Amino acid sequence: MFRHTDYLQFDAKPEKPDPVYAHKLQELIGGAFGEMTVTMQYLFQGWNCRMEGKYKDLIMDIATEEIGHVEMLATMVARLLEGAPATESSKAAGGDPVVAAVMGGMDPQQAIVAGGGALPADSNGYPWNGRYIVASGNLLADFRANVTAESQGRLQTARLYNMTDDPGVKAMLKFNLARDTHHQNLWLAAIEELQADGLESVVAPDALLDEEHAEHATDLWHLSDGEFSSTGGWANRLAPDGVHQMGFNADPQPLGDKASPPPPDPKLYATYDGAKGTPQNAQLGTEKGVMGKLKDAIPD
Amino acid sequence: MFRHTDYLQFDAKPEKPDPVYAHKLQELIGGAFGEMTVTMQYLFQGWNCRMEGKYKDLIMDIATEEIGHVEMLATMVARLLEGAPATESSKAAGGDPVVAAVMGGMDPQQAIVAGGGALPADSNGYPWNGRYIVASGNLLADFRANVTAESQGRLQTARLYNMTDDPGVKAMLKFNLARDTHHQNLWLAAIEELQADGLESVVAPDALLDEEHAEHATDLWHLSDGEFSSTGGWANRLAPDGVHQMGFNADPQPLGDKASPPPPDPKLYATYDGAKGTPQNAQLGTEKGVMGKLKDAIPD
Amino acid sequence: MFRHTDYLQFDAKPEKPDPVYAHKLQELIGGAFGEMTVTMQYLFQGWNCRMEGKYKDLIMDIATEEIGHVEMLATMVARLLEGAPATESSKAAGGDPVVAAVMGGMDPQQAIVAGGGALPADSNGYPWNGRYIVASGNLLADFRANVTAESQGRLQTARLYNMTDDPGVKAMLKFNLARDTHHQNLWLAAIEELQADGLESVVAPDALLDEEHAEHATDLWHLSDGEFSSTGGWANRLAPDGVHQMGFNADPQPLGDKASPPPPDPKLYATYDGAKGTPQNAQLGTEKGVMGKLKDAIPD
Amino acid sequence: MFRHTDYLQFDAKPEKPDPVYAHKLQELIGGAFGEMTVTMQYLFQGWNCRMEGKYKDLIMDIATEEIGHVEMLATMVARLLEGAPATESSKAAGGDPVVAAVMGGMDPQQAIVAGGGALPADSNGYPWNGRYIVASGNLLADFRANVTAESQGRLQTARLYNMTDDPGVKAMLKFNLARDTHHQNLWLAAIEELQADGLESVVAPDALLDEEHAEHATDLWHLSDGEFSSTGGWANRLAPDGVHQMGFNADPQPLGDKASPPPPDPKLYATYDGAKGTPQNAQLGTEKGVMGKLKDAIPD
Amino acid sequence: MFRHTDYLQFDAKPEKPDPVYAHKLQELIGGAFGEMTVTMQYLFQGWNCRMEGKYKDLIMDIATEEIGHVEMLATMVARLLEGAPATESSKAAGGDPVVAAVMGGMDPQQAIVAGGGALPADSNGYPWNGRYIVASGNLLADFRANVTAESQGRLQTARLYNMTDDPGVKAMLKFNLARDTHHQNLWLAAIEELQADGLESVVAPDALLDEEHAEHATDLWHLSDGEFSSTGGWANRLAPDGVHQMGFNADPQPLGDKASPPPPDPKLYATYDGAKGTPQNAQLGTEKGVMGKLKDAIPD
Amino acid sequence: MFRHTDYLQFDAKPEKPDPVYAHKLQELIGGAFGEMTVTMQYLFQGWNCRMEGKYKDLIMDIATEEIGHVEMLATMVARLLEGAPATESSKAAGGDPVVAAVMGGMDPQQAIVAGGGALPADSNGYPWNGRYIVASGNLLADFRANVTAESQGRLQTARLYNMTDDPGVKAMLKFNLARDTHHQNLWLAAIEELQADGLESVVAPDALLDEEHAEHATDLWHLSDGEFSSTGGWANRLAPDGVHQMGFNADPQPLGDKASPPPPDPKLYATYDGAKGTPQNAQLGTEKGVMGKLKDAIPD
Repeated sequence: MFRHTDYLQFDAKPEKPDPVYAHKLQELIGGAFGEMTVTMQYLFQGWNCRMEGKYKDLIMDIATEEIGHVEMLATMVARLLEGAPATESSKAAGGDPVVAAVMGGMDPQQAIVAGGGALPADSNGYPWNGRYIVASGNLLADFRANVTAESQGRLQTARLYNMTDDPGVKAMLKFNLARDTHHQNLWLAAIEELQADGLESVVAPDALLDEEHAEHATDLWHLSDGEFSSTGGWANRLAPDGVHQMGFNADPQPLGDKASPPPPDPKLYATYDGAKGTPQNAQLGTEKGVMGKLKDAIPD
Repeated sequence: MFRHTDYLQFDAKPEKPDPVYAHKLQELIGGAFGEMTVTMQYLFQGWNCRMEGKYKDLIMDIATEEIGHVEMLATMVARLLEGAPATESSKAAGGDPVVAAVMGGMDPQQAIVAGGGALPADSNGYPWNGRYIVASGNLLADFRANVTAESQGRLQTARLYNMTDDPGVKAMLKFNLARDTHHQNLWLAAIEELQADGLESVVAPDALLDEEHAEHATDLWHLSDGEFSSTGGWANRLAPDGVHQMGFNADPQPLGDKASPPPPDPKLYATYDGAKGTPQNAQLGTEKGVMGKLKDAIPD
Repeated sequence: MFRHTDYLQFDAKPEKPDPVYAHKLQELIGGAFGEMTVTMQYLFQGWNCRMEGKYKDLIMDIATEEIGHVEMLATMVARLLEGAPATESSKAAGGDPVVAAVMGGMDPQQAIVAGGGALPADSNGYPWNGRYIVASGNLLADFRANVTAESQGRLQTARLYNMTDDPGVKAMLKFNLARDTHHQNLWLAAIEELQADGLESVVAPDALLDEEHAEHATDLWHLSDGEFSSTGGWANRLAPDGVHQMGFNADPQPLGDKASPPPPDPKLYATYDGAKGTPQNAQLGTEKGVMGKLKDAIPD
Repeated sequence: MFRHTDYLQFDAKPEKPDPVYAHKLQELIGGAFGEMTVTMQYLFQGWNCRMEGKYKDLIMDIATEEIGHVEMLATMVARLLEGAPATESSKAAGGDPVVAAVMGGMDPQQAIVAGGGALPADSNGYPWNGRYIVASGNLLADFRANVTAESQGRLQTARLYNMTDDPGVKAMLKFNLARDTHHQNLWLAAIEELQADGLESVVAPDALLDEEHAEHATDLWHLSDGEFSSTGGWANRLAPDGVHQMGFNADPQPLGDKASPPPPDPKLYATYDGAKGTPQNAQLGTEKGVMGKLKDAIPD
Repeated sequence: MFRHTDYLQFDAKPEKPDPVYAHKLQELIGGAFGEMTVTMQYLFQGWNCRMEGKYKDLIMDIATEEIGHVEMLATMVARLLEGAPATESSKAAGGDPVVAAVMGGMDPQQAIVAGGGALPADSNGYPWNGRYIVASGNLLADFRANVTAESQGRLQTARLYNMTDDPGVKAMLKFNLARDTHHQNLWLAAIEELQADGLESVVAPDALLDEEHAEHATDLWHLSDGEFSSTGGWANRLAPDGVHQMGFNADPQPLGDKASPPPPDPKLYATYDGAKGTPQNAQLGTEKGVMGKLKDAIPD
Repeated sequence: MFRHTDYLQFDAKPEKPDPVYAHKLQELIGGAFGEMTVTMQYLFQGWNCRMEGKYKDLIMDIATEEIGHVEMLATMVARLLEGAPATESSKAAGGDPVVAAVMGGMDPQQAIVAGGGALPADSNGYPWNGRYIVASGNLLADFRANVTAESQGRLQTARLYNMTDDPGVKAMLKFNLARDTHHQNLWLAAIEELQADGLESVVAPDALLDEEHAEHATDLWHLSDGEFSSTGGWANRLAPDGVHQMGFNADPQPLGDKASPPPPDPKLYATYDGAKGTPQNAQLGTEKGVMGKLKDAIPD
């Protein structure tokens, strides 16, 4: 259960409104690595975490912080849109190229749909969606996704920081940048601790390493003709997992048969010359279990 | 420019067809972390890489490999669908619960749309889309995304490995698991090398660290009432970046003003009591530059 | 800013796991009228509300409640998935039609992607997205959207209530149904109060009523040949807004000219016989303002 | 079955073309509350209406009207795009900031994809999609959705009305505004009539009111710290449904247990310390019915 | 403007309900080549057609027919869902594997969202969207899209025809198949007539043929190692356009420079070693036109 | 399996950067008919082709070529973005209307997300998705889709060719136009050859022509009141398939019963007056096969 205070985590006060920048800032709200993503990603990870204790509590602390970041950005967007020439006609705008250019750079839906507020969408107006988040239950894999989200998020924030001169906007972004720095450190530290606690290893998941085809877990396949990929350390070193010896396959050959689909079901009308014969039946699993026995026992 | 051979990178030969499994395997083709994602992610990263040399060549080697993985999986799906009861009527299916259950577990579009072939979609039938990929130009941030993709991808492959008994399917997945193991090692090694080469540091991007609000880059804000987040090393250690001393803020207070949007544009018809007055004009940047001068020079 | 407690708003304890039902329950998490929608709809409405006071505080109270509803449902889904035959092979499943049918009715991504947890998606696996929410700034229009969301939400919850016998699931849904009942009453009461406070009227928005073509604001146009639409009160009564006299146009005729696009830009290669001549130039607004004056003043 | 006349319901004649406005007008065609939504929403409601007679006929009359509204807007967009500088090069545009600004404000796909015509998309270029419509079969819930659609639609139309000076565009929008006024009245009147006819009540659906947890159907939970939500009538009045006494819970406490998922399936590789033991099996419903009996009767 | 009659274009009467088939039939309503696509594709083509006369009237005749096809299919789906075990609990279903299998094969949203009706979505529950349609204004290109839509549509209908034994369903599909046959003939005939009327040629659009690099308009580039692509007539014949002599390039070589992006903007933080220098400024078109002159005239 | 060379198929060298044009060019990368579509469409068609030999090899040759076209366009976009004023603040931009207009016409995500590179999205920022491709297994239907894709693709390329003056851009597009010309000819020739080889006929699929309702496969239904659709050859000629005699139905009447859904399941709470009685049970296919026999044999 959640509680809310009306006060923002940090000030979101632009010195002056700037509707073009309000458009760009949507990326940090509803983009693939915006605050809606980290909010929902961490919430679902926390709810899906299978161990009570420090990891789950860490996830929920940060998740709850992130909802407040969406709030800060939504407030900032509304303030940046104050007095925007949203309802100026094209005719009036046409008379002043600065106004016209501003109108061209605005997000039409911030005016028409949201009445001068923020949208749950990115800087191209594409809505945030649930396929952006990662919550697999495997904490190593998920914390790596979190490092990624905070890295891409800080990168985008840094780019946006350079796109404004407004001291109020910059002040808020300095806070966001700092939190992203901290969160990168947090998730990196948590990965180290997962490994130190013996819960996960270097390869995610820490499973099936004995069953996989080990002979294919070592070499870089050289399939593009650039000359330098063999000069990286990765072509000849002990792997980060401490187990595999990394190598280089300079001229990899296909190991499989021809890529060729089977004969088609005639009732699906694929174009076909009959050369592969007719399809065999699918394996429906009837050879054992209750139904297999029943089928034997009951006359057709 | 690309070239193609008809032979598969590795065999994709199921012992017997299994249409229900063909449905699940779509996740590895068109899911958020399927082979279409890594193909396109690495291609766009390579095309967007700003340095000639080992990093770019590494990216293009793996990108080119991944197109072939989509090919392997698409071929496997078509073979698993051989002889599937796709065109059995519901009536016939109703007479045999095994057939009926198989039909319930199949992907309708694999039959109706693809005629017994693979789809560029995931295991819930949702199409692959371009927002899944990450290609920012910052190699540290992007290689972290690559570690994530290979970790989630190997995790999903491992789960799917447990969902089949077919030795032919398992053989191919053992190859895929091994490549995912290698690729995790590769991207982790490349991150180490980026840092060793002095191109990037621990925090991504390696920028604005002096400008951000340093006092907010250190503490975990305790906003969820679980008791254990302060017991992790992250609450009291030197940060992974080697710079920040990590701490714990046990009772964080809001630092900002009230979350409150400005007075609305009356022509946008927000419900409003007038208490905040009327909006100020947006800052359109006219105070300097050519237009500012022109406006001064020309009578209204 | 938000805070979180680990305790659920209400118990989410199924008596027994039921993975097929876990699939259906996704509709209440990530469907168009699921809890993610009301969470985000109310949050954005609150952040976009232009009046401090009772309306905004009401919105934020309910918004904060709804985040906790997503939490309850996500927890319920994970519990319903306990011990699901997600990693049974098709072969084993084929031997037991009950298991097979359960596997056919499960959501593949709850296992492959979420590792046995909830997804931010609906019961057909389609991800929640930001175009589902309504936050226009006009409180009458938005509260109507809220009544709609709570009505469709309670309807779907009631349907799902009938799809289970599990007393634990039913207990939680009885809570959800009750909250939806209350929220319908709340938003209906808030609409009455908006009107009583003189902030809004019956037609949304309360604007341009004098400018619109009043003669077209009264009659139902009879365009489908069913015989009974004229027998409703709406064909002859005072309108709910207390102003318009509602009527019936039994044989409406088109009032406009032919639907016909203008001559095309030849460089866009529409198929064209030239009969409409060549296109006139667009109106670019240069006849007044700074640029118009400049153009006059400066030789070409 | 449908029939069509080439004549428009109302004139769609701009005085002059205006390509920037043509971009914005897309919201009324393919936005979440554009004419494609009401067309499809009413058609599917009519086809899904379970009672012959006045309600169904009303729905189909308005549905058929709305197809013609898409036609009017698509025609208007094409005419507004006449002579647009779509095929001007950036270089030429750069020489004239008015032209440049117009090009920046245009929808690139209206030129590149539609050759100067309308798109089935909104003002941010996002395509209309089927998740926008509501057709549940419950007429109270659906008519509320219709009131919402007409309210948001009229609000957006009113905003767009203020964004143009063109008398021809304004004339058409005056017609649209009037129809939206009428349609709001129609659906509100139809809701009153549904209730007067005894088909529906105030809470949708009119079901399970005796089974839901009545003690939770009355109080507003105060979870955000604004001070004024208790001052609304909704905190102490008879509810709009005439049954519940509305109240205020000033300090709500969680009623449920800890949000905690069950032990995970080991084959799905969630990170886990084993503290919760191993998962119980899912309830697959085998204890009664044909299969339960069969399982008892047949040896394993 | 449109009018509607309640009577269906053709009977849509299944002999018996079949909820599993109702799920599959969604493909013909809301799939990429379902009836919603042809409805909207032809409507937008008609509204965007730049010539009055036979082509436009043909398009509008068929467009209007297709709306009625959506109606037939939506009615059929509702009838196929009659009495479906949508509200059976999983427990009851578990006792009867036939019921269980049916429930596994049903579309959950047809029950939960539509209350037993059709959805504007495909057979995987993905919503119809506006990016499916093609309406470019070029009639040759668009009529080819129409031939495609009717071909894929008839193919899917034929596949679905084989998936049912119900004589009522088959009767309706025999009508749909016949209309698709006719529509393929119609659009093929219209293409012939466009060419006979001298409005279009074989290559779409009939433009820039003199400017394009003619030497690259003739040869198949052999980039995949299959041996037989040179044995098709296309490797050595006069092209269908009657102009080009088709040939075969057995060993194509890249004609371009290295794929390499320029030096990056340092404020966007791409990883960069500086080897390419610093970026040149973009061409903003200031060298001619009003602004170029102004800039010269006014001191900085 | 694929291999890659770093050299481009053709030069992609703009004379000068042009960030506004870089935005528009996205349509040819990630639009519905962009190079990502033809790449994936042809790859999936090739992998799904049921005949070894010339058709499959043709498809794979062109598929492999198209990956290289994505590469050319992605490189071109990055070069067009060189030195773009992406990180200019709004304030600075406001001082120069040319810069401001350029910024308004740029794609914000090319800077914020891709750091000055191309996106897998179209010119409105909407991501490429898998529903764009067609790979049905029926080569006639699919080659028609290919003709369509190359026609729409060449049309869009021709439009974009007119939107730039840059000789380097135009040079590359002249290559693309020529390849599109050739590919249109190729697919048209392949269709002729399919028919000459006796593999397919004119109607796709070549099936069920004897079963469909032949009396409805001949006439154009005149449902829109334009007067000229009967004047086309299609109203009175032998059909392109050489079999049907095409005609004109000047006043088509509905052939079906009323569009009316059946009585609803009461537990789904549709609004209902009971007039249609209660629903019959669905046909679950139990009357024959194993389960039917079992049900008879075992007491309830």
